[in-house]
Amino acid sequence: MAGGAAALALTGRMLAAEPGARGDPAILDLPAHSKALGQPVAAHGYGLPSVHEKNLQRRESPGLTRVSQASVSFTPLQGLFGIITPNGLHFERHHQGWWDIDPAKHRLMVMGMVRNPKVYTMDDLMRLPSVSRIHFIECGANSGMEWANVAVPTVQYTHGMLSCCEFTGVPLSALLDDCGFDRKTARFILAESADGAGLTRTIGIDRALDDAIVAWGMNGEMLRPENGYPLRLVVPGVQGVSWVKWLRRLEVGDQPWHTREEVMHYIDLMPDGSHRQFTSIQEAKSVITSPSGGQKLLDKGFYNVTGLAWSGRGRIKRVDVSVDGGRNWKTARLETPVLSKALTRFSLGWVWDGGPAILQSRALDETGYVQPRMNQLRAVRGTRSIYHNNAIQSWKVADTGEVSNVQVS
Amino acid sequence: MAGGAAALALTGRMLAAEPGARGDPAILDLPAHSKALGQPVAAHGYGLPSVHEKNLQRRESPGLTRVSQASVSFTPLQGLFGIITPNGLHFERHHQGWWDIDPAKHRLMVMGMVRNPKVYTMDDLMRLPSVSRIHFIECGANSGMEWANVAVPTVQYTHGMLSCCEFTGVPLSALLDDCGFDRKTARFILAESADGAGLTRTIGIDRALDDAIVAWGMNGEMLRPENGYPLRLVVPGVQGVSWVKWLRRLEVGDQPWHTREEVMHYIDLMPDGSHRQFTSIQEAKSVITSPSGGQKLLDKGFYNVTGLAWSGRGRIKRVDVSVDGGRNWKTARLETPVLSKALTRFSLGWVWDGGPAILQSRALDETGYVQPRMNQLRAVRGTRSIYHNNAIQSWKVADTGEVSNVQVS
Repeated sequence: MAGGAAALALTGRMLAAEPGARGDPAILDLPAHSKALGQPVAAHGYGLPSVHEKNLQRRESPGLTRVSQASVSFTPLQGLFGIITPNGLHFERHHQGWWDIDPAKHRLMVMGMVRNPKVYTMDDLMRLPSVSRIHFIECGANSGMEWANVAVPTVQYTHGMLSCCEFTGVPLSALLDDCGFDRKTARFILAESADGAGLTRTIGIDRALDDAIVAWGMNGEMLRPENGYPLRLVVPGVQGVSWVKWLRRLEVGDQPWHTREEVMHYIDLMPDGSHRQFTSIQEAKSVITSPSGGQKLLDKGFYNVTGLAWSGRGRIKRVDVSVDGGRNWKTARLETPVLSKALTRFSLGWVWDGGPAILQSRALDETGYVQPRMNQLRAVRGTRSIYHNNAIQSWKVADTGEVSNVQVS
Repeated sequence: MAGGAAALALTGRMLAAEPGARGDPAILDLPAHSKALGQPVAAHGYGLPSVHEKNLQRRESPGLTRVSQASVSFTPLQGLFGIITPNGLHFERHHQGWWDIDPAKHRLMVMGMVRNPKVYTMDDLMRLPSVSRIHFIECGANSGMEWANVAVPTVQYTHGMLSCCEFTGVPLSALLDDCGFDRKTARFILAESADGAGLTRTIGIDRALDDAIVAWGMNGEMLRPENGYPLRLVVPGVQGVSWVKWLRRLEVGDQPWHTREEVMHYIDLMPDGSHRQFTSIQEAKSVITSPSGGQKLLDKGFYNVTGLAWSGRGRIKRVDVSVDGGRNWKTARLETPVLSKALTRFSLGWVWDGGPAILQSRALDETGYVQPRMNQLRAVRGTRSIYHNNAIQSWKVADTGEVSNVQVS
């Protein structure tokens, strides 16, 4: 029943051949990969993507910052599937460039209002009871260019400061207990990085004791150098700047430190000229990753409209999709698992009739929060913010099939 | 409150300096990474692990097969965390070596007992509604050397034909529907690979319609060449050989094909000389990955005993851990998410007293099946099998702290 001739039909050349040409030598001109020995196992002790996937890269937005050591590279969301971001494509945001720190020399000090201040080696930390959890990380400035309505061309650049991985490490609460911290008086934790930026951020004690992790693992292996190897803080639901990389120090205190990265940066300039500080939670948000800006629909017919939804407050409860700029909505299918403070993949089938369309997605989380429209967000926040833009994203499909970034009032 | 001097204390050199030596220039001899600009973003469009992690590789067992194109490379389970296997460390098992096939030229034919046989391009397939699911894949021969009691030294070589990823693709059932297959008469599916091995495997229709996926995505990105790029079959719970790589053909029929890989290989030789065929499900199994063979406990005291459990029948319900060769058992903590036919990470704290110990884990799945001891399995299966060894694994800890592979009757 298994047909050898049928199998041959799968080469490009055979598809052009005449039916019944079974005896034709051309049929036997199989591709090399169907005739010969391939590459051996462990040709790469650590494997790499196909050479045909070279175009799927994280990319810097040229001119975004003065030097590339204090810049961003964006995750190519348009080419990814599911919810896991492969480590090689995890977005980057550095303040002083990245280093590949020798873990044998790296130390973490825990100090301040604790009975037993300690300096940990990586070996010390990795002997402690660890947990593994899948969470998203999003830079607070993700989609920041949309405030100014500049029509950034692709989802890689509009939403690509977003990744989702399985993180492994010791719960911050366990580490604080190990140092004898006092739950009655401790109210804040300061986290400090070992890079030249010496980046510091304050975390409230409730959040620190809830689900924060001092992590060394990312998607099963050690963190990548660009993502804080060998140690970073994971603060689920909170903007990326608080996930301090190359973590060298934790200090326990009873008041916030008001560090530069809290007072000068990562603040929201409101319409009345005041600044909101400590707005660290990433509220519910979603984006259609395909079709998305810069792509082109080549044909009328069926498309699997798919994207990502997430909330810093918990689980995604529902995602709605509109193809007419928000007049009508349909509920999308959510892929399992739907995890708290993790990306959730949604999909909805759509038959494109060849006419203009505006694609949108709208996330609802388990707290009942609904992702706002751009004009709803602007009514409260104005247009001078950089951070915490979680507005509904609109992609316009032209009758040529070309997809572009538009803002719908 | 934030202390600069404290931060300096984290360099190796400072730790050796005298207390109070704050004015000493030596204190200011910070490591380069705390003083200077690092590497720019997107230094690698596709990132790589730290240079300090070079030892964590998939490795071939020398001499296992005559040529390395028809061999195995093993995943380094002893160095991994959580449940996701990074794509660069996914195990390999090839029959004729691997190729990096051009997806623009690749085709999938669906034929046989269908009303509308079709040849799909990758673009055709990727426009269909897709699903994403996290599943383990295990070679049927994983732990096969343990039948012969040869004490393979490390968990990489005993259990490393095991990985777990998020796979994305079109449900096989949807593809069969697209070709108009007849649920009344169709009973079997044949899957065929495009490599020189032309590997073929039969899948029962119930399994094909249940949760099998024709997949292109693995952990968010396209499959790696070694794992079947651009297309492989995913058959959750079933041994790896049925997850046909470089998938070029699916045929629908009403009887099994009895292909070479079903009749000559991947069969279980029983004590009475008969062969069991089509034993494709991977039954519940677990293994402690740390501490494991080849590692050494450097000190008495606390250890986080951790490992992986999985079942081809569904979810893991419980994992028990023994430190005395199976006389006493404690229930381990399971990390979330606990997913059907996926790896589940377990952990249990253990204080080593410095004496000899034998570490074991035992998985129970949601069907009530309990992972057998080696002698229970041998009583039924004898010792001449290669495949489907899911016995409890024992690691002996010597009083020197050295950990080795032993078999406990």
